[in-house]
Amino acid sequence: MSLLVVGSVAFDAIETPFGKTDKIVGGSGSYISIAASYFTKNTNIVAVVGGDFGQTNIELLQRHGVNTDGLQIKENEKSFFWSGKYHNDMNTRDTLVTELNVLEHFDPIIPEAYQSCEFLMLGNLAPAVQQMVIERLETRPKLIVMDTMNFWMDIALDDLKNTLKMVDVLSINDEEARQLSGEYSLVKAAKKIISMGPQYLIIKKGEHGALLFSKDQIFFAPALPLEDVFDPTGAGDTFAGGFIGYLASTRDTSFEGMKRGLIYGSAMASFCVEKFGTERIVNLSDSEVQERVQEFVDLVQFEITYN
Amino acid sequence: MSLLVVGSVAFDAIETPFGKTDKIVGGSGSYISIAASYFTKNTNIVAVVGGDFGQTNIELLQRHGVNTDGLQIKENEKSFFWSGKYHNDMNTRDTLVTELNVLEHFDPIIPEAYQSCEFLMLGNLAPAVQQMVIERLETRPKLIVMDTMNFWMDIALDDLKNTLKMVDVLSINDEEARQLSGEYSLVKAAKKIISMGPQYLIIKKGEHGALLFSKDQIFFAPALPLEDVFDPTGAGDTFAGGFIGYLASTRDTSFEGMKRGLIYGSAMASFCVEKFGTERIVNLSDSEVQERVQEFVDLVQFEITYN
Repeated sequence: MSLLVVGSVAFDAIETPFGKTDKIVGGSGSYISIAASYFTKNTNIVAVVGGDFGQTNIELLQRHGVNTDGLQIKENEKSFFWSGKYHNDMNTRDTLVTELNVLEHFDPIIPEAYQSCEFLMLGNLAPAVQQMVIERLETRPKLIVMDTMNFWMDIALDDLKNTLKMVDVLSINDEEARQLSGEYSLVKAAKKIISMGPQYLIIKKGEHGALLFSKDQIFFAPALPLEDVFDPTGAGDTFAGGFIGYLASTRDTSFEGMKRGLIYGSAMASFCVEKFGTERIVNLSDSEVQERVQEFVDLVQFEITYN
Repeated sequence: MSLLVVGSVAFDAIETPFGKTDKIVGGSGSYISIAASYFTKNTNIVAVVGGDFGQTNIELLQRHGVNTDGLQIKENEKSFFWSGKYHNDMNTRDTLVTELNVLEHFDPIIPEAYQSCEFLMLGNLAPAVQQMVIERLETRPKLIVMDTMNFWMDIALDDLKNTLKMVDVLSINDEEARQLSGEYSLVKAAKKIISMGPQYLIIKKGEHGALLFSKDQIFFAPALPLEDVFDPTGAGDTFAGGFIGYLASTRDTSFEGMKRGLIYGSAMASFCVEKFGTERIVNLSDSEVQERVQEFVDLVQFEITYN
């Protein structure tokens, strides 16, 4: 039930209508592994940071039981840095700064002790790097989940298509699904994308929930209606972390199991947006998580009896 | 279990990326009463048409068991006419023509035989007309559901607020909920709107489903992901018709009952968008309806077992 997470571990500076932050811990790998830590106690990360990242931030991951042996520290370089500003609707944002820094030449070295990982979560990174990770694993994991974004569809589509053939589950948002498939209807988009390789497709729709597609099944997980969305940064990665963490803990990769994973992922994402960055998801109790999952149950469950 | 539907019975001319129609039967009253007819066999309509509407179109309603004694025919006037063109995303449309015609001086006369109706569905009409209907009923119905739109918030807000105090359930879309409440968050919007009168609020989000709010409960009904949305005209009214028709048939106005009503309404709306106008919803079999409801069950139901 061990989980390997590969992604960025980085600094973000975020501005929302509610306020702004200095450099705080961000990156797909951070959100995924922290969210997963609430479900599986055996999470291993492969990522790269600069000398500026600091021991305190590494300890944040370690406090969540994340094995950081695969976290490379480039002492004389700087960590990946992203800065963005959200518009008033919180659904759109402008990227203010993107500094690749250590990510520019990231070589994902897999520690020997990670080789037996049964679950692999490829957070958003260059598709060629994601592919390299898969190729470097001596045994194919039981389940490979890949996240990506429109940026790679724009500049590395062939790499992306190659990597897609090697994974089990792809996780993208609705606009990315439309871009990748050339179809507006998400049902049609899903069919096309599943024919490109992955057996399952998750389409994230932000405040409108998430869809899980297999070749012949569809499941919908709602987003929790919230009074305030404070900061959406990392919600998609937190969702992915809850999803893969739950699957790694149950080892149930059936469609029914994935449905539950979607609900757990959605619950974790609903916490993420309540505060800046990782602030909310680093301090959750197990009972808070279970209560939140129960809110999802109450939100969508109903009983139909046919006359 | 009798249902009174008040709304427009009219002509629409619709253009979508898939084609265009001549004048076809439309109007909130038509969609609502046809959709409701799949659940309750005792539906009574109050509406007004012109001499141009024609006996064949009236018989369409009658064939669905709708009592048209309250359908006024103004022989020398013309029926309400709306024409619109949908954009490629099918989520936005331009109104090309609105001719009020008979609706301009609509006096909703309630036939004596309708007085005992237990369920009242006020389709989109001037709020002052909706209020007049409530005032003309000698016994208050068990449940009053009201639909409205942004147009009335723009030109008749005071009337709308007065009518809101007299109804049990308000049904509007997300943008209208934001406009009426002045709140962007739908959770905050719902609180404000419920404090304005109705005990329950339904917020329709089109392809993103619908939310049902009470003072302290929330339920979410998804929309069915479809390969093609052919024509969204009337989907909100069809939803309302399925909702109130189901409630009238079960007489269960509890929150649990309304949850089921939302699912039946959503199922009916998912049929509506598959063809132009009322074309799809006039020819459904009961088994098609039940199978569609089962698709909703399959779409959102999951089982969580806590460890």
